[in-house]
Amino acid sequence: MKKTPLSTRQQRRKPGRPLGGSIVADTRQRILESAIARFAMDGYGKASNKAIAAEAGVTAATLYHYFESKGTLYRSALREANAVLVNVYRSACKELPDANSMEQLCLGIEKVIALTRQRPGLMAFAAASAGEIRRHDDLEWLEPEDSDAFPNFFRGLLRRARSRGELGRGIDIEAAVQMLIACISGLAALQGTPSATKGFASVLRAFERMLRGDLMLSVDRKV
Amino acid sequence: MKKTPLSTRQQRRKPGRPLGGSIVADTRQRILESAIARFAMDGYGKASNKAIAAEAGVTAATLYHYFESKGTLYRSALREANAVLVNVYRSACKELPDANSMEQLCLGIEKVIALTRQRPGLMAFAAASAGEIRRHDDLEWLEPEDSDAFPNFFRGLLRRARSRGELGRGIDIEAAVQMLIACISGLAALQGTPSATKGFASVLRAFERMLRGDLMLSVDRKV
Repeated sequence: MKKTPLSTRQQRRKPGRPLGGSIVADTRQRILESAIARFAMDGYGKASNKAIAAEAGVTAATLYHYFESKGTLYRSALREANAVLVNVYRSACKELPDANSMEQLCLGIEKVIALTRQRPGLMAFAAASAGEIRRHDDLEWLEPEDSDAFPNFFRGLLRRARSRGELGRGIDIEAAVQMLIACISGLAALQGTPSATKGFASVLRAFERMLRGDLMLSVDRKV
Repeated sequence: MKKTPLSTRQQRRKPGRPLGGSIVADTRQRILESAIARFAMDGYGKASNKAIAAEAGVTAATLYHYFESKGTLYRSALREANAVLVNVYRSACKELPDANSMEQLCLGIEKVIALTRQRPGLMAFAAASAGEIRRHDDLEWLEPEDSDAFPNFFRGLLRRARSRGELGRGIDIEAAVQMLIACISGLAALQGTPSATKGFASVLRAFERMLRGDLMLSVDRKV
């Protein structure tokens, strides 16, 4: 289905990437951030390298110096977005090392709310990625070391919860990992719709309430 | 942005639709079901009317007799999928009229699990629709009477919960409506990925546990 085998792509990619230096790193980073914003706004098919380069304040030639194709750029942008998002949750755990897992997760969500105010396209881009990769033959799934970062984070969080007696009895950790990722992806995609962006924080807070188990109460736990 | 104003499309659509009779209704229904399956599998861009017609066991000419364009077919398929899914939740409420809102919602989820076993593409198709409509100029959002069906259902459920003292204190109903729809969309999209389909039921059951508030427990509610 994919046009070029991964091994060939990797061999070809390396020469395009200049070495070292903070200007180089800054330029690369700026291109990635513009790419995330453009891909979030226009989708992979319509976003052009030219528009991404313009938004990053570089020429198309400079962009190709860092990323050999739109597919390579997309993949790097996705790796970046994924790393930024998972690090938000990891930093919440570090900030409250002794809190229970639910509190850590809720703090992570609060940090995501703050982040999405700074970088509005980030979550919409990440949320759309699975669909984009399925639809476009020149896009590939992330390597496991990147794509497993979120499942690994949630798996670790839930295992720790179990070891501390904080996990609901009989919860299937793997199913719960997929469920949390699916919900968070769904919430992220919501940020991409024009009507929802404004109230995104309150929507995420409703999710926190559900996580805390006080969205809807059964009769014996009524308010 | 849209190529044809809605009023023109509506004027043009009517002549293509034959009148009455259960064979007509059956054929139309079979085309819609094939369309949902194909759009779910291939995406709007790649799915062809020819392939959809073949899957429904009709000629392309017959398909065009019912639906004047791929865009019209997509829209009708989405209206159908949306109606099927919201009616699953509504029927759960009717089945347990006296249960609390959380129990009704959980029964709805159980019914969705059963439905997705019969019609695997249904939820993936619905979940992908927002992205497809944003990306393709010849697709339009559903009319409010259709697109509001899910928000209206959840709004009604949460208002009823509030009136019965079953809603968490201070919950913002509109935010909670969006949150529930986003989570359910995210879960639906998960069903579209090859790795996740098998365990879809257990993932939805983990969601039920979260809804019930016993996914993760705070210290004072430890198991």
